[in-house]
Amino acid sequence: MFLHRQELQHKVKPSKPDAVYARKLQEVLGGQYGEISVAMQYAFQAWNMHIPGKYRDMVFGIGAEEFGHVEMLATMIAQLLEKAPLGITSDAVQSDPTVAAVVGGTDIQHAIVAGAGARPVDSMGNPWQGSYITASGNLMADFHANANAEMQGRVQAVRLYHMTDDHGVRDLLKFLIARDTMHQNQWLAAIEDLKESGVESLPVPSNFPQSQEDTDVSYQYINFSDGGQAGDGRWASGPSIDGKGEFSYVAEPPAGVPMPPPTHPDSRFYGT
Amino acid sequence: MFLHRQELQHKVKPSKPDAVYARKLQEVLGGQYGEISVAMQYAFQAWNMHIPGKYRDMVFGIGAEEFGHVEMLATMIAQLLEKAPLGITSDAVQSDPTVAAVVGGTDIQHAIVAGAGARPVDSMGNPWQGSYITASGNLMADFHANANAEMQGRVQAVRLYHMTDDHGVRDLLKFLIARDTMHQNQWLAAIEDLKESGVESLPVPSNFPQSQEDTDVSYQYINFSDGGQAGDGRWASGPSIDGKGEFSYVAEPPAGVPMPPPTHPDSRFYGT
Amino acid sequence: MFLHRQELQHKVKPSKPDAVYARKLQEVLGGQYGEISVAMQYAFQAWNMHIPGKYRDMVFGIGAEEFGHVEMLATMIAQLLEKAPLGITSDAVQSDPTVAAVVGGTDIQHAIVAGAGARPVDSMGNPWQGSYITASGNLMADFHANANAEMQGRVQAVRLYHMTDDHGVRDLLKFLIARDTMHQNQWLAAIEDLKESGVESLPVPSNFPQSQEDTDVSYQYINFSDGGQAGDGRWASGPSIDGKGEFSYVAEPPAGVPMPPPTHPDSRFYGT
Amino acid sequence: MFLHRQELQHKVKPSKPDAVYARKLQEVLGGQYGEISVAMQYAFQAWNMHIPGKYRDMVFGIGAEEFGHVEMLATMIAQLLEKAPLGITSDAVQSDPTVAAVVGGTDIQHAIVAGAGARPVDSMGNPWQGSYITASGNLMADFHANANAEMQGRVQAVRLYHMTDDHGVRDLLKFLIARDTMHQNQWLAAIEDLKESGVESLPVPSNFPQSQEDTDVSYQYINFSDGGQAGDGRWASGPSIDGKGEFSYVAEPPAGVPMPPPTHPDSRFYGT
Amino acid sequence: MFLHRQELQHKVKPSKPDAVYARKLQEVLGGQYGEISVAMQYAFQAWNMHIPGKYRDMVFGIGAEEFGHVEMLATMIAQLLEKAPLGITSDAVQSDPTVAAVVGGTDIQHAIVAGAGARPVDSMGNPWQGSYITASGNLMADFHANANAEMQGRVQAVRLYHMTDDHGVRDLLKFLIARDTMHQNQWLAAIEDLKESGVESLPVPSNFPQSQEDTDVSYQYINFSDGGQAGDGRWASGPSIDGKGEFSYVAEPPAGVPMPPPTHPDSRFYGT
Amino acid sequence: MFLHRQELQHKVKPSKPDAVYARKLQEVLGGQYGEISVAMQYAFQAWNMHIPGKYRDMVFGIGAEEFGHVEMLATMIAQLLEKAPLGITSDAVQSDPTVAAVVGGTDIQHAIVAGAGARPVDSMGNPWQGSYITASGNLMADFHANANAEMQGRVQAVRLYHMTDDHGVRDLLKFLIARDTMHQNQWLAAIEDLKESGVESLPVPSNFPQSQEDTDVSYQYINFSDGGQAGDGRWASGPSIDGKGEFSYVAEPPAGVPMPPPTHPDSRFYGT
Ligand SMILES: [Ca+2]
Ligand SMILES: [Ca+2]
Ligand SMILES: [Ca+2]
Ligand SMILES: [Ca+2]
Ligand SMILES: [Ca+2]
Ligand SMILES: [Ca+2]
Repeated sequence: MFLHRQELQHKVKPSKPDAVYARKLQEVLGGQYGEISVAMQYAFQAWNMHIPGKYRDMVFGIGAEEFGHVEMLATMIAQLLEKAPLGITSDAVQSDPTVAAVVGGTDIQHAIVAGAGARPVDSMGNPWQGSYITASGNLMADFHANANAEMQGRVQAVRLYHMTDDHGVRDLLKFLIARDTMHQNQWLAAIEDLKESGVESLPVPSNFPQSQEDTDVSYQYINFSDGGQAGDGRWASGPSIDGKGEFSYVAEPPAGVPMPPPTHPDSRFYGT
Repeated sequence: MFLHRQELQHKVKPSKPDAVYARKLQEVLGGQYGEISVAMQYAFQAWNMHIPGKYRDMVFGIGAEEFGHVEMLATMIAQLLEKAPLGITSDAVQSDPTVAAVVGGTDIQHAIVAGAGARPVDSMGNPWQGSYITASGNLMADFHANANAEMQGRVQAVRLYHMTDDHGVRDLLKFLIARDTMHQNQWLAAIEDLKESGVESLPVPSNFPQSQEDTDVSYQYINFSDGGQAGDGRWASGPSIDGKGEFSYVAEPPAGVPMPPPTHPDSRFYGT
Repeated sequence: MFLHRQELQHKVKPSKPDAVYARKLQEVLGGQYGEISVAMQYAFQAWNMHIPGKYRDMVFGIGAEEFGHVEMLATMIAQLLEKAPLGITSDAVQSDPTVAAVVGGTDIQHAIVAGAGARPVDSMGNPWQGSYITASGNLMADFHANANAEMQGRVQAVRLYHMTDDHGVRDLLKFLIARDTMHQNQWLAAIEDLKESGVESLPVPSNFPQSQEDTDVSYQYINFSDGGQAGDGRWASGPSIDGKGEFSYVAEPPAGVPMPPPTHPDSRFYGT
Repeated sequence: MFLHRQELQHKVKPSKPDAVYARKLQEVLGGQYGEISVAMQYAFQAWNMHIPGKYRDMVFGIGAEEFGHVEMLATMIAQLLEKAPLGITSDAVQSDPTVAAVVGGTDIQHAIVAGAGARPVDSMGNPWQGSYITASGNLMADFHANANAEMQGRVQAVRLYHMTDDHGVRDLLKFLIARDTMHQNQWLAAIEDLKESGVESLPVPSNFPQSQEDTDVSYQYINFSDGGQAGDGRWASGPSIDGKGEFSYVAEPPAGVPMPPPTHPDSRFYGT
Repeated sequence: MFLHRQELQHKVKPSKPDAVYARKLQEVLGGQYGEISVAMQYAFQAWNMHIPGKYRDMVFGIGAEEFGHVEMLATMIAQLLEKAPLGITSDAVQSDPTVAAVVGGTDIQHAIVAGAGARPVDSMGNPWQGSYITASGNLMADFHANANAEMQGRVQAVRLYHMTDDHGVRDLLKFLIARDTMHQNQWLAAIEDLKESGVESLPVPSNFPQSQEDTDVSYQYINFSDGGQAGDGRWASGPSIDGKGEFSYVAEPPAGVPMPPPTHPDSRFYGT
Repeated sequence: MFLHRQELQHKVKPSKPDAVYARKLQEVLGGQYGEISVAMQYAFQAWNMHIPGKYRDMVFGIGAEEFGHVEMLATMIAQLLEKAPLGITSDAVQSDPTVAAVVGGTDIQHAIVAGAGARPVDSMGNPWQGSYITASGNLMADFHANANAEMQGRVQAVRLYHMTDDHGVRDLLKFLIARDTMHQNQWLAAIEDLKESGVESLPVPSNFPQSQEDTDVSYQYINFSDGGQAGDGRWASGPSIDGKGEFSYVAEPPAGVPMPPPTHPDSRFYGT
């Protein structure tokens, strides 16, 4: 059950209107790694989780925070759009190239569809979609997905930070970037916790008996390109990260096996 | 430049036709975490990479292997479909409920669109899409994306392993699962390598000065749900994973700030 | 700001597993008119709203309830999947056509991708997407969108009600259907309220001066098909609903105007 | 059966080229609430309709008109693009910032893909899709969908009206806006007609026995946010719109029920 | 302008209900190469055409026919669904595996969303989308797109023909297959006509001066795989089809050029 | 099996940065007819092919080349972005309208998401998707799809050629355009080869007995629009292209048949 409180976690007040920047902010609202993605990802992980207790409480706890981040960004976008020129003709687009340039770089649906409001899309106007999220039921895999999401999100947020001088916008970004710092750390800590508590280990899923896999290629780096330096990395020699094997380096793909003969399905499919 | 060799990395020969299973295999061919995704993800990461040398050589090296994995799965799917009933009326669907059940669970486009061939879709028929992949230009973030992809992929592959008794299919899965073991380890090793070589560290991106973020909330777990046990985790106390802070636990969200007043855009947007 | 409480608005406990029905329930979770749609739609309408007070409080109030409906359905789906056969070979699919039939009708990603968990998709596996929602900034238009959404949603819920005999599932549907009854009434009441309070009237948007439109066709039904009975409806004669015109019936489209001559763009587009 | 006549319902002749505006017009051609949407929506409703006579004749009659609206907008877009700079280098983009600004705001596929022609996309380049439309088989629900579509469409059209001074474009918009006026009224009138003729009533679907729903919550406004004014609306007290209940106001969500324990699916899904 | 006539080009009356087959028919209604695709493709080509006269009249002429094909298939699908079991519990799914198998293979949205009506989707439930169609403004290119569409469509239709014994359904397919025969021939004839009339020739676009391209590779087959027989084809020796060159066969890709050094963008993108 | 070589087929070095042009180039990388499409299309056709030998060897041979074209374009895009202004505030956007105009026309995700790298999307930011490709199992149909793809691709490439004066970019385009010339010719030659070798003929699929289709309409042009000149084309009289019939011209659609009565599905779908 979700309850809404008409407050924000942090102040949301831009210094001035900026419709082009409003469009850019859509990326971290409705993009692949935007706040809708993490909110929905954590929600589905919590709903599908098989273990009660600290992990589940934590995932619920952070998930609800992220819905509030969506709200702050939507509010900021609406504020950035409020007084900005959005193509109404008396904005003097025709006569002033600077204004025209600004309007040309806006999200056109901000004006036509939303009447100067936020939208559930990314910075190029692609609608948010359910296929952005990950909830496999395996916490080790999913917490890596989450760590990645917070890393990508923080990378995007700091890029956005450098794309504006607006103190109000930067003030919000400073807050969100700090939360991304925490959330990166949080998922990496949760991964450590999973390992320490024995809930899951590597390789994921760890319960599948490795005797069932082709163990002769389980720790081989095989080089399918012609670069010569891939053998210098941590992944090409020494003990594997999961502690269950030894990395080796194979400079060229071994001879393969012949392809099976082409198929001949029922003639009523009219293949040739 | 890519060169093709008419060989496969591993034998692809099912014991018997199975159109329903062919559909299931589409998930690891054309799904969110299927082989097309990793092949394309590694390719774009390599093309966008800023550092020559071992990382780039390695990403090119594994990327080309993954295109070969796509090929093996496509070949397997075509073989599974070759002699399977796919709805041609003389398949006797009408009179035999078992056959009808099988056909009901197939990918209908395998028959109508591809004439018993593989398709660039997942197990529910959703076309593969570019938004599945991640290539940010930041290797630490992207290698976490890659580790996650190989974990999700291995989880799916072992689930599929338990959904068939076909020795030929299992033989291929054993190989692919082993490569997933390597590739999980490989990306986690590459993360270690990045840290050791000083290319990147945590939080990602590490060069952004943390003095610019709201450091008072950089290491706080804030509990937006009412579960009581989130404070027991590794993420709620002790040193942070990035070594730059100390985790703390905040049992309830602090009082927020008031929402800004609603916006009043230009009247010619005819909002109400 | 959203806060989560680890309680549900209503009991969620199926009598028995049913993976096929779990798939069907996805429609009202992640479909065009599912609970994610109304939750997100009301959230964006609230964030974009221009008027403080009763409308905004109400939209926030109902929006948060809908996120809880998403949660109840996700929970129900996970429960329906918990002990259901999902294609693991020892489920005896091969030998029992009834089991095979059940598995054939499931959402395959429930098993392979989510490990018997709920997913952000509809009953045919299409991911939820942002383009399902509507938030124009004009409350009269949007409240009609909302009334429609609750009507479509209730129609789907009652259809689903007849597709199961499970008392636990029906118990949840009875609750959700009742809330749909309220929410239909709520939006229709809000439309009345908007009219009575003078915030907006018909045609939407009412502030645009009708003198600017081609008033000679503003209240004409023009018959572009050859059915003879469209003139018998309320829309073909008598006062218009907005009270600003008189309906008339035009039995055949009047003669049109010639198409403009085809365009001849720059030759370097190499059109023919 | 559809017949085409090489005439337009209204004149389509812009005063001057304007590629940026051509892009904006794509919204009402190929957007969520563009003319393709209403044309296809009414067509599918007619094909799926269960009652012969005035409703079906009317839906067919308006549906065919909408295909002609698609045609007028496509024609207008091609005309606006005909002589407009679209990025050909001799357009002097490099030296004239005004020209560059204009080209920067165009739909790039208008030039590269369509050679200065119209496209089946919205103003941000998203392809039109079947999931925009609604045809449930229940006329009361669907006519509300239609009223909403015409309201959203008219809101967008009047916004577009203010984004150009071109007399030829405005001339077409005046016509389309007037038709939207009619079509809004038409669907609202059809809703009245349905009620009067007893075909359907509220809540939709009205034949489902309300005794089967949880009637104790059928007319309650429950406040899941902390705004204090939602109780002041028409939806919080007095008779419900469907005439079957009495609205009441519940200031806070009642205590919920405990979530069921987390699920434990088959271990071969390798959840954690 | 489009006018609708309440008649069908051909009889649409199945012998018996068949919901699984109704789903299959969706492929040629709303799939990549279904009737919506050709109807919309021809419409956009006509609207964007630069030449008045026979080509444009022909494209308008066939386009309108295709909208009628959409209508016939939608009508057929609704008829196939009318009396078919679609999951209502008294359909006795639980007790009869044959019925269960049938329902398991249906389009679930046919029942839940459309109330036993047709939908704008393909056989796997993917919504039709604007990106299926092609209208480049170059008739030679587009007529090849059209020939391909009619070929793919006819291949799918004859596959569907073999998937049913229903005389009524086959009766309609015989008609549609014959029209596909004509339409294949029509586009191939139109290609001949374009060449004969000098409107366009090969390679497309023919007006681009070939002196501007790297003519040394304009007619070389370069073999990037290791198969040995590609040199035996018509494409590897002899005069080229456009009559402007001579095919040659290059058995192995020539040495390439080095990749440029990796890029180093602005440090504020925080690449690694 | 695919092997990667760290070389390019042709030099990739722009004379200067140009982020707007980088966005335009995305069309031929990740658009409907971009290099990803042909690479994946040829790969799937090869994997699904039923005939060993020259056709299969050729399709594998060209497919691998196309993956290298993807690589060259991705590399070019990254180079064009390397030093281009992308919205970092010190780019002086605010004070220089020319710079602002340039940034306004860029792909915003190039900066925020990819850190000045290439992306798997088209020029309007739509992700590449599997539904762009065609692989039916029928070579005659598919080779027409391929010819069309290379024609559309060459049309787009020459349009792009005229949108830049950059010698380095044009140098690459000259090469790609020449390869498109070859590939157009190659598929048309392969079509001839198929006919000559008797593998397939017209109409596609040729093995379906035409006696099963409604031969009375197999070669009729039926005019569903009111243009008068469609009868003047090659498609309206004389022998058909497949040599199996005689074209005829039908000036007006013959009288159709009545629509069947509307359906009345189970009342529990609550249609009206
Ligand atoms: Ca966040
Ligand atoms: Ca792999
Ligand atoms: Ca609800
Ligand atoms: Ca209209
Ligand atoms: Ca057709
Ligand atoms: Ca190419």
